[in-house]
Amino acid sequence: MTYCLAMLVREGLAMLADTRTNAGVDDVSAYRKLHVFRTPGERTMVLATAGSLSVTQTAISMLENGVKDPDSGKTETLLSVPSMLGAAGLVGATIRKVRAGINVDPSQEVRTDATVLMGGQIVGQPMRLFLIYSAGNFIECEPDTPFLQAGEHKYGKPILDRSLSYETPLTEALKLGFLSLDATLRSNVAVGLPADVLTLPRDAIDPEVEVRIEPDDPYFGDLGSRWSSALRDAVAAIPDPPW
Amino acid sequence: MTYCLAMLVREGLAMLADTRTNAGVDDVSAYRKLHVFRTPGERTMVLATAGSLSVTQTAISMLENGVKDPDSGKTETLLSVPSMLGAAGLVGATIRKVRAGINVDPSQEVRTDATVLMGGQIVGQPMRLFLIYSAGNFIECEPDTPFLQAGEHKYGKPILDRSLSYETPLTEALKLGFLSLDATLRSNVAVGLPADVLTLPRDAIDPEVEVRIEPDDPYFGDLGSRWSSALRDAVAAIPDPPW
Repeated sequence: MTYCLAMLVREGLAMLADTRTNAGVDDVSAYRKLHVFRTPGERTMVLATAGSLSVTQTAISMLENGVKDPDSGKTETLLSVPSMLGAAGLVGATIRKVRAGINVDPSQEVRTDATVLMGGQIVGQPMRLFLIYSAGNFIECEPDTPFLQAGEHKYGKPILDRSLSYETPLTEALKLGFLSLDATLRSNVAVGLPADVLTLPRDAIDPEVEVRIEPDDPYFGDLGSRWSSALRDAVAAIPDPPW
Repeated sequence: MTYCLAMLVREGLAMLADTRTNAGVDDVSAYRKLHVFRTPGERTMVLATAGSLSVTQTAISMLENGVKDPDSGKTETLLSVPSMLGAAGLVGATIRKVRAGINVDPSQEVRTDATVLMGGQIVGQPMRLFLIYSAGNFIECEPDTPFLQAGEHKYGKPILDRSLSYETPLTEALKLGFLSLDATLRSNVAVGLPADVLTLPRDAIDPEVEVRIEPDDPYFGDLGSRWSSALRDAVAAIPDPPW
C-alpha cells in the first residue's frame, strides 16, 4: 500500500508520500514515491506515485528519457513539455503504454494499476495539480476540495475534510498533511516512514521545503504526541451526552 | 453502506449504528440496524447489522422466532439461548442458513454478505462482544483493541485507534463513538443519520442510554462544531515544521 497526498491552497502546493511498498506482509521494502522534475527558476513538477511499482518506476524513467506525445507526435520529457496540462496528458499516455506492454498475454493476470498525483508550475503559467488514473485519464484539483489523495486514502481523509480549505496557509496545510499521514500510519501497517515531503509556494517555481521524514524524526514524533494529547483534551471538553 | 460500532470498555458496552441503506446512490432509504433483544433484569443482547438487508432482516426475524441450534439440536431464540457464546454461534448459523437459502441457483450472483456486531450480557455471566462474519464464524472483542466495527470502518477508525482504551470511561467512549460516526458521515454519503445508540453498563443488565439521534439533534450538531473548532485550535498550537 501507499499514502500520497497533494494539497493545493492559495499560497501554494504541498505534497507528501510514504515509502513503503509490499508484496504481501512478508515482503516489505522502502522505495521513493515522490519524484521531482526541475529546471531551476523555470519549472518544478512533482509526481507522487501509487500502485504497481514496476509500472510507476518504468513510467518515471520514460518521462525522464522522453516519450512520444500522442497529441503532438513529438518526443517530450517532463522538462520539455510546454504546459502542466500537457504534462498530465504525457504522464497518462506513459502509464497506459507501460501497462499495455505488460499485459500482452491475456492469460496472465498481472495487476498493473497505477495512480499518479502530479502538481507543479511552469514560470508564467498557473500552478496546477492533477490526479492521473491507471487508464491515463485525469482530474484536476479545484478550490472546493483543495486536495487529492492516492493509495490508502480513507484513514487520513476526515482531518482534511474537516480542516483544510483553499484559504488554509501553506504551513497549516503541511501540518494537516502530517496529521493525515500520521492517522494513516497508525491504522495501516502497509503505509510506513520514511516519508518524502515537498512544498512549492505559488509563483516561487522552486521548492521551499524538500525533506525526508525518518522514523525517528523529532518534529514528526512530537506532532503525533501533541495531537494525541490535544484530542484527549478536546474530547474531555465536549459536554457529556444529555441522555 | 453502513457504519456500526461497538465498544467494550471496563465500565460497559456502547453500540451505535446509522440507518442508511442504499442500492445505488439513486435508491437510498432508512432502516433500523440496531436491534435489541431483552428480558428485563435477565439479559440484554444488542445486534448491529451491516451488509445485505434481505439477509440481516430475515436473520433477525428468525432469531426472534426460533432457530434450530446446530450444536444442541434444540430450537432457540436470542432470549432462550443459555450464553453469549451460544448466541454468537446461533447468529452465525442463522446468517449461514439465510445465505444458503438465497444462493440456491449458482447462475444468479446475489450478494449476500452480512456482518453482525453482537454485544450484551446475561445475568451472572460476563459481558461479551462479538463480530460475526458472513460465513458464520466470529471473533470476540478483547481489551487490547476494545472496539469492533462493521461496514464503512476506515474513516472512523483513527480517532478510536488514537484515543480509546479499555480504561476509557463509558461516557468518554460514547463521545469518541460519536466523533467516529461524525467522521464517517462527513466522508461517505452512504452513511447517514438518524443513528441508533445504546449503552449497557457492565452488570447492569438493562440499558442506560437508548436513543435515536435525528439529523437535527442539537447535542450531535454541537459536538461536531465543537470538535471542528477544537481541531483548528489544536493544529494551530502545533509548532511549525522546522524546515
